[in-house]
Amino acid sequence: MLAFSNPGPLFTDLYELTMAQAYFDNRMFDTAAFSLFIRDYPKNRSYFVAAGLEEALKHLEDYTFSHDELDYLKSIGLFTKYFLSYLKKFRFTGTVRAMPEGSIFFANEPVLEVSAPLIEAQILETFLINTIGMPTLIATKAARCIHATQGRPVIDFAARRTQGHDAAIKVARSAYIAGFTATSNVLAGKLYGIPVSGTMAHSYVTSFASETEAFAAYAKTYPDKAIFLIDTYDTLDGARHAAKVALEMKKQGHQLIGVRLDSGDMVVLSRQVRKILDDAGLPEVKIFASSGFDEYQIAGLIQQGAMIDAFGVGTRMGVSADAPYLDIVYKMVHFKGKDIRKLSPGKVNLPGEKQVFRKTDENSRFLGDIIGLKNEAFPDRMVALLKTVMENGRITEPSPSLDQIRNAFARSFLCLDDTYKSLDGAREYPVDVSEKLMEIPDNIKIG
Amino acid sequence: MLAFSNPGPLFTDLYELTMAQAYFDNRMFDTAAFSLFIRDYPKNRSYFVAAGLEEALKHLEDYTFSHDELDYLKSIGLFTKYFLSYLKKFRFTGTVRAMPEGSIFFANEPVLEVSAPLIEAQILETFLINTIGMPTLIATKAARCIHATQGRPVIDFAARRTQGHDAAIKVARSAYIAGFTATSNVLAGKLYGIPVSGTMAHSYVTSFASETEAFAAYAKTYPDKAIFLIDTYDTLDGARHAAKVALEMKKQGHQLIGVRLDSGDMVVLSRQVRKILDDAGLPEVKIFASSGFDEYQIAGLIQQGAMIDAFGVGTRMGVSADAPYLDIVYKMVHFKGKDIRKLSPGKVNLPGEKQVFRKTDENSRFLGDIIGLKNEAFPDRMVALLKTVMENGRITEPSPSLDQIRNAFARSFLCLDDTYKSLDGAREYPVDVSEKLMEIPDNIKIG
Repeated sequence: MLAFSNPGPLFTDLYELTMAQAYFDNRMFDTAAFSLFIRDYPKNRSYFVAAGLEEALKHLEDYTFSHDELDYLKSIGLFTKYFLSYLKKFRFTGTVRAMPEGSIFFANEPVLEVSAPLIEAQILETFLINTIGMPTLIATKAARCIHATQGRPVIDFAARRTQGHDAAIKVARSAYIAGFTATSNVLAGKLYGIPVSGTMAHSYVTSFASETEAFAAYAKTYPDKAIFLIDTYDTLDGARHAAKVALEMKKQGHQLIGVRLDSGDMVVLSRQVRKILDDAGLPEVKIFASSGFDEYQIAGLIQQGAMIDAFGVGTRMGVSADAPYLDIVYKMVHFKGKDIRKLSPGKVNLPGEKQVFRKTDENSRFLGDIIGLKNEAFPDRMVALLKTVMENGRITEPSPSLDQIRNAFARSFLCLDDTYKSLDGAREYPVDVSEKLMEIPDNIKIG
Repeated sequence: MLAFSNPGPLFTDLYELTMAQAYFDNRMFDTAAFSLFIRDYPKNRSYFVAAGLEEALKHLEDYTFSHDELDYLKSIGLFTKYFLSYLKKFRFTGTVRAMPEGSIFFANEPVLEVSAPLIEAQILETFLINTIGMPTLIATKAARCIHATQGRPVIDFAARRTQGHDAAIKVARSAYIAGFTATSNVLAGKLYGIPVSGTMAHSYVTSFASETEAFAAYAKTYPDKAIFLIDTYDTLDGARHAAKVALEMKKQGHQLIGVRLDSGDMVVLSRQVRKILDDAGLPEVKIFASSGFDEYQIAGLIQQGAMIDAFGVGTRMGVSADAPYLDIVYKMVHFKGKDIRKLSPGKVNLPGEKQVFRKTDENSRFLGDIIGLKNEAFPDRMVALLKTVMENGRITEPSPSLDQIRNAFARSFLCLDDTYKSLDGAREYPVDVSEKLMEIPDNIKIG
């Protein structure tokens, strides 16, 4: 499996190609612009964290139809030989403007815009929505977890219950961008250089004649890197067994890193386990906890005084369980020199190619955004968020490293006032639409 | 992209490998058995539809570590050269028993069991949970949609908002198993032979000078395969424009397949559109509808008298939005000749290698299941659901075709009484545990 495994151009909804055939038949090769944006906040959300751009651009540079793919398209009987010849030579030649990965953005703000000949711009719809949308969904959820942990380390444990294999590596990457410390997912570690971390499973403990024996065997193999899972039978007994083995390790010049709780009342248990460890003279042994956590539970545990030093967060982050999809869309905003909008109930969108301007104070703190037209001039102290990342179908500059993206997000997150980060998403960040954009007339075409 | 793109053995949680290192150091090569099952029903669920087995078995046959993968494992400094040599020669040599894809099963019933030397069985945990769990999650959600549509065709529109690229093709495959008619996902069409289907997007309509022109152009390209999207500006006007073009098509000996509604009040609009089409002498033109549907909305629309002939179902099915993960686990149940259980609060599991027996009546209708021991003998009229699908690490017989799986599910679904299919999951199907299984003593090991 590659870092960014290319699904190829057939990863698309059929209608992108049937529309393209109709455009082709009608010689519609004029330039169109499309805008990728999220129409509304899912439950409890009040910001988004952009992710997925590096992968999207890599595949765009290589968006070509193989013989095999063309043969399949031929076999379904919907495409003319002229159009199939066109696809054979197809490559993306357009311009892409986008917010860098790790950017914080808001509802209705374009996170990416494409300008290209109509067919080229149209057929990317399914691919771009998926490739940017899903990592953005997860980076956003992960950022909420980071906010909830108040500086405690968090590790991605989601691999097993993500929605598929590439979801798992995308989750690890998105969570790392948002500030997770490490991942349990070895493949993500290899592909992206994310630190990997792991302890033991219940099955490990049950495969030994006793819990103490299981811990001692693990300590022998990993004398300086061991974290014992202590809830297989009884958590407090588990803590005592762990302490016993930890003291033996100490005698031999080693140190138990921590114990892991994975079930039960985490507030009560973490305090009792802390006491057992402290009483045994092991204040340095940390308490890790995992157990179907999400940002809500983490915030609750910390508030109730749980003595947990680090969290493992899996399933609920990995599928963004409380909001498992985004209302992310890719809409035509400009074609043949005209700005375009559609008017379907509940689905009106802003016309025209755009730019997002962010007002900041002298400390770079975000004061509010304005969605304006692409070429609008705005006063100083406003940052234009969409950058040109692809021209003539080629990436204009190398992607930042994953750590650069992660650091950029961390800096931005500090610049977003904490009141906008509350887990109920109650306070909405101010996003205005520029006067120039408001003035665009409705090009309503009926008849 | 391949039909079943192999993520390789590094798609695993790190702890599977660190545990394996500890097992290796302690020469623990005895045979272990693990059971894959779902601990509890998610909200509103009352049955599950098994999927993902064909992919799991294919990768298991090829579960080997490449040089590249071993180099990475070496680089993280957690594994001895002896263990890395062991991994270099690793292949899975065990036995797998599983329910065929398309099987209907219930909470706590093993859908798959592995018996193999401890390390081999352990390190599959993450991989098997993900590879079986996610397709099962989606097939289950899709089956609920099929039940809700009461025989109307349903098309998978989920590709763009699934959680990643391979999620998209797994969703298409799982939905097809559950009875979906077609998919919009061209790649899934190519890889699995699923019929593909698609219409047009709003951007298609807005790229023409008028809606009528957009429809006419499409009809020219697809005179016998067109479905017009009619809600870009105003649905009723759209219906009138569609009717006008459809009458032109008729004059030339062609036929409009249908119109698609994608927003607004579907009950009211579908009836009004039906009337416009009927009044125009176009009773044969079908009404398709899509708009963030799931089983609940479909059931509601039908109940309220919406005149919809076929549904496009996307996002909410594709991420199983109301229940986006399963509590699916892989637990050691037998090791070194002893049956095993763990006792963590809320996580007690049934020990021993198992079989699931299903009582049926003379019409094959399901009467109830018994979870028993693998070799228990049960009277006639009971079907044993777990079959041996892999021995000595080799697949024992070719996988059924996707259509065979789909047909098998359709037959089974008829045998499950409708009272167990209600969308609120209120009626629980009877699953008992055999006396022999209940009699297994707790091998509780503390100390």
